Amino acid sequence: MTQNSANTLSVARQAFEYFTHGLATGKWEAFLDMLTEDFTFWFPMGKFHGLNTGKDRATEFFEYVSASFKPGLKLTSLDRITSNETTVVFEFRDEGLLLGQPYKNRVAISFDVRGDKICSYREYFGSDGKSY
Amino acid sequence: MTQNSANTLSVARQAFEYFTHGLATGKWEAFLDMLTEDFTFWFPMGKFHGLNTGKDRATEFFEYVSASFKPGLKLTSLDRITSNETTVVFEFRDEGLLLGQPYKNRVAISFDVRGDKICSYREYFGSDGKSY
Repeated sequence: MTQNSANTLSVARQAFEYFTHGLATGKWEAFLDMLTEDFTFWFPMGKFHGLNTGKDRATEFFEYVSASFKPGLKLTSLDRITSNETTVVFEFRDEGLLLGQPYKNRVAISFDVRGDKICSYREYFGSDGKSY
Repeated sequence: MTQNSANTLSVARQAFEYFTHGLATGKWEAFLDMLTEDFTFWFPMGKFHGLNTGKDRATEFFEYVSASFKPGLKLTSLDRITSNETTVVFEFRDEGLLLGQPYKNRVAISFDVRGDKICSYREYFGSDGKSY
């Protein structure tokens, strides 16, 4: 693994830790601090479906996520981590309540790293949210 | 990159080429030949939702895919490839007709490699199938 690849993996692992902390607790500050100003993300469905641009939009999104998944979404399994010089993909499973109803999903989230920040990510769903 | 990682990436790239050929043409033989006998795959929704086991089940699935997406699903963009010693993730977009209606999706597919074969994969969807 080159030095760039090792740095990319290390930055993404830290961001993923903050990301899952945000999902579990609703506290997103540490994750948001790791995003570049020109940050973009793709989300699979609902009002944030498609490409979203900017940290303000990201802040709005994570508030929406934590309002929807009270009291928090728990990581139940980290299945795979793959990476290259610029990108790291985490495959994981999570579980919680969506608007009070039981929710389970398999998820792949792909972080693009620039320096010590995340400049974009793409999220993908592996189930219908009802079972793995 | 270690020799194992390079082999894993090379095997997965070949399998992905056969996979996209299957999507485009309905001809899945080359891809099916690359699957181990104990092959498993996870799919996000519908009658194949969840964990599917065995090559017979895979054959049934790919016939179902090609019957649903006539005359074929075209890869429009290969966005990212990430990998480690055993697993390779392809992020891509595809486009076609689903039962005659316009269809577009962003997809992540994660291949696990054993030797020169694919022993399992997990598929994830990045959109609702209507737009990227």
